[in-house]
Amino acid sequence: MKVSELSRRTGVQVSLIKYYLREGLLPPGRATASNQADYGEDHVHRLRFIRTLIGTRGLSTSATKEILDAITAEQDDLHQVFGIALGVRPTRRGADAGTQPADGTEPEPQPEPAGLADARTLIAEMGWEVSPGNPATHTLAEVLAALAGLGADIDWRGLMPYARLADSIADVDIRQMSGERDVLAQAERAVLVSILLEPALLALRRLAQEAKSSRHFAGTDRPAGTDSA
Amino acid sequence: MKVSELSRRTGVQVSLIKYYLREGLLPPGRATASNQADYGEDHVHRLRFIRTLIGTRGLSTSATKEILDAITAEQDDLHQVFGIALGVRPTRRGADAGTQPADGTEPEPQPEPAGLADARTLIAEMGWEVSPGNPATHTLAEVLAALAGLGADIDWRGLMPYARLADSIADVDIRQMSGERDVLAQAERAVLVSILLEPALLALRRLAQEAKSSRHFAGTDRPAGTDSA
Repeated sequence: MKVSELSRRTGVQVSLIKYYLREGLLPPGRATASNQADYGEDHVHRLRFIRTLIGTRGLSTSATKEILDAITAEQDDLHQVFGIALGVRPTRRGADAGTQPADGTEPEPQPEPAGLADARTLIAEMGWEVSPGNPATHTLAEVLAALAGLGADIDWRGLMPYARLADSIADVDIRQMSGERDVLAQAERAVLVSILLEPALLALRRLAQEAKSSRHFAGTDRPAGTDSA
Repeated sequence: MKVSELSRRTGVQVSLIKYYLREGLLPPGRATASNQADYGEDHVHRLRFIRTLIGTRGLSTSATKEILDAITAEQDDLHQVFGIALGVRPTRRGADAGTQPADGTEPEPQPEPAGLADARTLIAEMGWEVSPGNPATHTLAEVLAALAGLGADIDWRGLMPYARLADSIADVDIRQMSGERDVLAQAERAVLVSILLEPALLALRRLAQEAKSSRHFAGTDRPAGTDSA
């Protein structure tokens, strides 16, 4: 199909399609004339995938390109694709770069963020074996430090019930990822499940919170509209 | 204490403290001279709370002000504070604004986002009573529409295991919120638990995912560094 048809099928403007082609997010079509190319169903699918990561999930163009490149390059190793989607390691060759420079010199000492020791204690308590470069460890440390700074009596022990539920969520995630036979489709699905479901999970928690808040804190004062539902 | 001491205690620059004072996020100090004021422990606490919402959680100044105002104004009604933190309703008076205009005219018909019917089915299936204005319903609808658009065979039924786990998370949330005796402290804590823990929950899921991905997809190929931990 022509680029205009690709645009119609996906609802993505031609100028934006050309931008994705230039940036290498979308592979080139089959050239049919000096300034025309033919696009296939693969392009429709890839374009929808790009729009989901950028439009629905809010990823940057460069982060999206990194993930797409990883899916293509590392499709034989789902753990690698998964690691890139989680931000754990940028590429296969760069996997150890953060911990051990290739030239054998000592890595730059980074200041330890407050809360990191507590975050590591929680991770060890859960029995999770994770790479030292997983940025989620630092996110967890930041939140623990913020809670401590505010004098809230929620420390890593207070987060253990959440950690156990997160462990159950990851079990569901792994099950969701195991349906595809084609390795490329499976790699794509791993990215979808890990990244696209994040806003859905927070939304589900917020909905459950409102429902429970209504019951626990407001007595008979129901939120507007629910009794007529 | 003087503003310089407030700055030293909290690590927040004087210019930023003055900005928060101007914007009304921080209440004024007790005037001791025409251009000097005295600040107390309440200011230290409030400033740390502001920095947590803006710095750690990434909220905008105006969103933070809205939440702080709600905590002060609605501290007697935790369900209201909670609703504002969740983005359900901007103020007490504006609670029904989205569904029923005060002047009795019909509300503007909004286009129904794709996936909204499925999102509502899931919510009903969970028995969650939520207000029609809860933006999380739309977030959920967007993700469901994106999954359908990509041809992924994950529909609202596929999200039910996540919804059940989110329900358990909200149970933990409610327990976490019930410790404080002081109503103002309880309102603050509701905001902390609902908003500040969001990045922590996603981080916990990512850590659990890496640990499980390693076991399920990589066989003996462990991520770098874990065997020497």
